[in-house]
Amino acid sequence: MSEQRFPVSRLDASQPDFEQVLNKLLDRRMIEDADVARTVADIIYQVRTRGDDAVLEYTRRFDRLNVDNMAQLEVSRSQMEAALAALEPELAEALRHAADRIRRYHERQLQSSWQYEEDDGSVYGQHVIALDRAGLYVPGGKANYPSSVLMNAIPARVAGVKEIIAVVPTPYGEDAGGAGRLIFAAAAVAGVDRLFTIGGAQAIAALAFGTQTIARVDKITGPGNVFVTAAKKQVFGEVGIDMIAGPSELTIVCDGKTDPDWIAMDLFSQAEHDEQAQSILISTDREYLDAVHDSITRLMPQMERQAIIATSMQNRGALIYAPDQQNALAICNQIAPEHLELSVEKPDEWLPGIRHAGAIFMGRYTPEALGDYCAGPCHVLPTSGTARFFSPLGVYDFQKRSSIIRCSEQGAARLAPVAEKLAYNEKLQAHALSAAWRIPGRKA
Amino acid sequence: MSEQRFPVSRLDASQPDFEQVLNKLLDRRMIEDADVARTVADIIYQVRTRGDDAVLEYTRRFDRLNVDNMAQLEVSRSQMEAALAALEPELAEALRHAADRIRRYHERQLQSSWQYEEDDGSVYGQHVIALDRAGLYVPGGKANYPSSVLMNAIPARVAGVKEIIAVVPTPYGEDAGGAGRLIFAAAAVAGVDRLFTIGGAQAIAALAFGTQTIARVDKITGPGNVFVTAAKKQVFGEVGIDMIAGPSELTIVCDGKTDPDWIAMDLFSQAEHDEQAQSILISTDREYLDAVHDSITRLMPQMERQAIIATSMQNRGALIYAPDQQNALAICNQIAPEHLELSVEKPDEWLPGIRHAGAIFMGRYTPEALGDYCAGPCHVLPTSGTARFFSPLGVYDFQKRSSIIRCSEQGAARLAPVAEKLAYNEKLQAHALSAAWRIPGRKA
Repeated sequence: MSEQRFPVSRLDASQPDFEQVLNKLLDRRMIEDADVARTVADIIYQVRTRGDDAVLEYTRRFDRLNVDNMAQLEVSRSQMEAALAALEPELAEALRHAADRIRRYHERQLQSSWQYEEDDGSVYGQHVIALDRAGLYVPGGKANYPSSVLMNAIPARVAGVKEIIAVVPTPYGEDAGGAGRLIFAAAAVAGVDRLFTIGGAQAIAALAFGTQTIARVDKITGPGNVFVTAAKKQVFGEVGIDMIAGPSELTIVCDGKTDPDWIAMDLFSQAEHDEQAQSILISTDREYLDAVHDSITRLMPQMERQAIIATSMQNRGALIYAPDQQNALAICNQIAPEHLELSVEKPDEWLPGIRHAGAIFMGRYTPEALGDYCAGPCHVLPTSGTARFFSPLGVYDFQKRSSIIRCSEQGAARLAPVAEKLAYNEKLQAHALSAAWRIPGRKA
Repeated sequence: MSEQRFPVSRLDASQPDFEQVLNKLLDRRMIEDADVARTVADIIYQVRTRGDDAVLEYTRRFDRLNVDNMAQLEVSRSQMEAALAALEPELAEALRHAADRIRRYHERQLQSSWQYEEDDGSVYGQHVIALDRAGLYVPGGKANYPSSVLMNAIPARVAGVKEIIAVVPTPYGEDAGGAGRLIFAAAAVAGVDRLFTIGGAQAIAALAFGTQTIARVDKITGPGNVFVTAAKKQVFGEVGIDMIAGPSELTIVCDGKTDPDWIAMDLFSQAEHDEQAQSILISTDREYLDAVHDSITRLMPQMERQAIIATSMQNRGALIYAPDQQNALAICNQIAPEHLELSVEKPDEWLPGIRHAGAIFMGRYTPEALGDYCAGPCHVLPTSGTARFFSPLGVYDFQKRSSIIRCSEQGAARLAPVAEKLAYNEKLQAHALSAAWRIPGRKA
C-alpha cells in the first residue's frame, strides 16, 4: 500500500543533509510577531491603568460576551461545587482518581527548609516558603481541558499556596451547562479559590497587576495562545512566570517491537491537539517505520479530528530512521522534546543517554495519554526545545527560598577579615567597615 | 545635633498616610523605557543574525575598545591561572576561603533524582540533570566585583554544569594589570571554562543565540544595568533566565539595642553600591532612630564613596518608626527586601513572620557585608519586591527536571480507563484510543 501512503516526512539520519532537514522541521525560532507584541503591550497598559473596565471591554470585544460587571465573569465556589455534584458519577470519579494520583506524585516534590550549625555557633540555612497567591491560566480554544485545571492547581495546593486564582477564556462561561461544567467541576476537585471566565492577554495583565476585583498574584502558570505567551513574556519580572510555551510535541523512539497501530495512535494523540503540534517517530528499524507509516495511512480516516491530525502530521510530523541507539539518542537530545516515549524493550538502558526532555514515558505500556490525564506527573511541560533549561511545572514552582545567615560573635570575628580584605579590593569601604566593626576591639 | 542632621526620610507607620508615602519611596513600577527596549531589540537582532561581527562592532562602539577579532576579547584559562598566581597571597587566600565557604553552602542545595514503585509494578519519578552550558553575567560599571564571579560560577559548578561561560564588560579587559586581574583570578578559583570581556545587551544576545566564537548557553544568570536587564527579559524563553534585577536594597529591623554606628555603616554598605540603591531602617524605638540618624550624620563625611552614599540615602533611604513587632513585620513583607537584617535580640521569634526576603541576616553579628562576600549563601538575590516569587540564585537554577513514568502492563490497564473517560470528555479520541489499546483485549 506504499503508493497511497499518507504524506508524512520520512527522514534518514545517515544522510548528509539530515541535520539541516531536521532543523527546518523543528523550526525553533520563536515567532517574534511585532504586531502581536504591540497589541499585547497596549492591552497590558490598559488593564494596568484602568483595571476591571479594561478587562470587561476586552472580554466584550474578543470573547464577544455581553458583560458589564466583573461579577458576571466570576464563578463562585458554590457554582464549582454544584457543577461537580451535577456530573455523572463515573466522570466525577475519574476526575477524583486523577486528582488523587496527581496529588500523591507531587507530594514527593515538596521541599523543606533546612539549616545547619557551624562549630563556631553560626547557623546557615534556607527557608522554603509557599507563594502567597498564584494565578493559573487554563487554556480554552480548540479543546476543553479540565485536566489542565488539575495539573496547574494541585501542585500549587500541595506547595501550600494561600490563594489560587484560575482564569479560563470566557466562551466556557457562556456554556455553563456544557464544556464549562467540567472545568468548574475540576476547579472544585482541585481546590481553586476563585475562578474567572476571562482569557487572553487581558487575563494575564489582570493577574500580574491586579484590578479592583482580581488580586495581584505572585506567579502565573499554564500555557495559552500566542497572545497569552507574549503577555507572559512582557510581564515577566513584575510577576513570576513558569515558562514560555509553544505548540505541544511528542517524540517516540521505538525498537520496532511495539504494535505499529499503538505507535500510530500515540502520534495521533499528540497531533489531534492542534495543527501546529508535532509528532516524531525515531526507529533503528526501517521496516518498522514502513509498518507505522501503513498504520497511519489506515487509521487516519477513522479519526474524529482527522482534519487537525492530517495537517499536523503532514506539515510537522516525521518518521526518522537512525542507524543505531547512540544516533537515536543524539537526535532526541537535539529535539529536546516536551514528551518522549521510549517504546523499547529496556528503557532503563536508554535513560542515562537522555539529557533533555520534559517527561519521559518508558516502555511499551506508557503512552503519553496516560501522563496527560492521570499517571501523576504534571502535563504542563517545556516545549520547543526549552527542556534544555525549563522543567515540568511542579510544586517547586509554587515555593520560593530565602537564605538564612546567623553569625555568632565568634563566627563574625572569623569571617569579617575575609570580607574586609575582599571589600577593600572592590573599593567598598563601607562594606569593609561594616564587617570589621563586628570584630572585638576593631571599632574605635 | 538634630538641626544639622543628614537629610534622610523619617517615616512613621502610625501615621494615616504611611502606606502611600512608603509606596512612593519604594517606587516599584519597573521602568518600561521604550527607547531602551527598542535599542536592545536591535542589538539582539544584529548579534543573532551577524554573530561575532556585531559583537565586535558594539564592543568598539559602547566600550570604546579597539578590537577586530574575538580572540582579543577572550581570556584564556592560562591567563586566569596566571592572574591568580600573581595575586598577593593574602588576597588569593581570601578568594579561596570565600570560594570554599560558598561551595560548602551550595552543596546542600543539590537535588537528586528520585523514583518510587507502585504495587502494580509501575515506576514514577523525577530525573534531575545539570544544564549543559551556563552563561554568567558579571556586572562591571561603578565597582569591580570578583565576588560576583564566585557567587555565579560556584553554584553552577556544584550543580555539575558541563561548560561555564562568563562575560564581564570590556573595560576590565583593558586594565589587565588592575581591576581585571582580580576578576580573572576569581574566574580561575571558581572554575570558569571560558571568559569574554564583553558586556551589555550584546553579551546577553551572544550567550542566548551563540555566535561563531561563543556557544549558545542554556541559561543566563547574574545582574547588570538596564540594557542587560531589558535584554534578559527579551531573550527569556529562548534561553533560561534567573531573574530580572533592579537596584540593590537592604532593610534592617532593629530593636534599638545594636550600636547605632554599626547600623549606620550597614546602611552605608548598601548605599555605596549605586545612587539607586535603597537602605531602610525600621525600629520600634523612636530614640534609637534618632541615634542612628546622628551616626549617619557623623560618619558620612568619613566615607570614601560619600557622593554615592549621600545621594542614595537622601533620595531612597528611610528611617521608619513602627509601633510594634507585628507592624514592623508587616512593613518588611510589604517591602519584600533583597537583604533583610534582623538586628534584634531573638531573631528566631521574628523569622516565622517573614514571608518575603531574598536573604535574611539574623542577629547583631550578621551584617549584610558578610553575606556579600563569604558567609556562603549566594549574593545574587531578588530585588524590587520580587522576593515575593524569585529565590536567591542557587544550584537549583542550574539543574532541571524530567518527569519519569513507567507503567507496567497491569498499571496501564488500571490507569487507561480513567484516561479514556477523561479523554472522551475532552473530545480527544486519539488520546482515548492510545490509552485504551494498552488494556488487554481492547484493540480489535
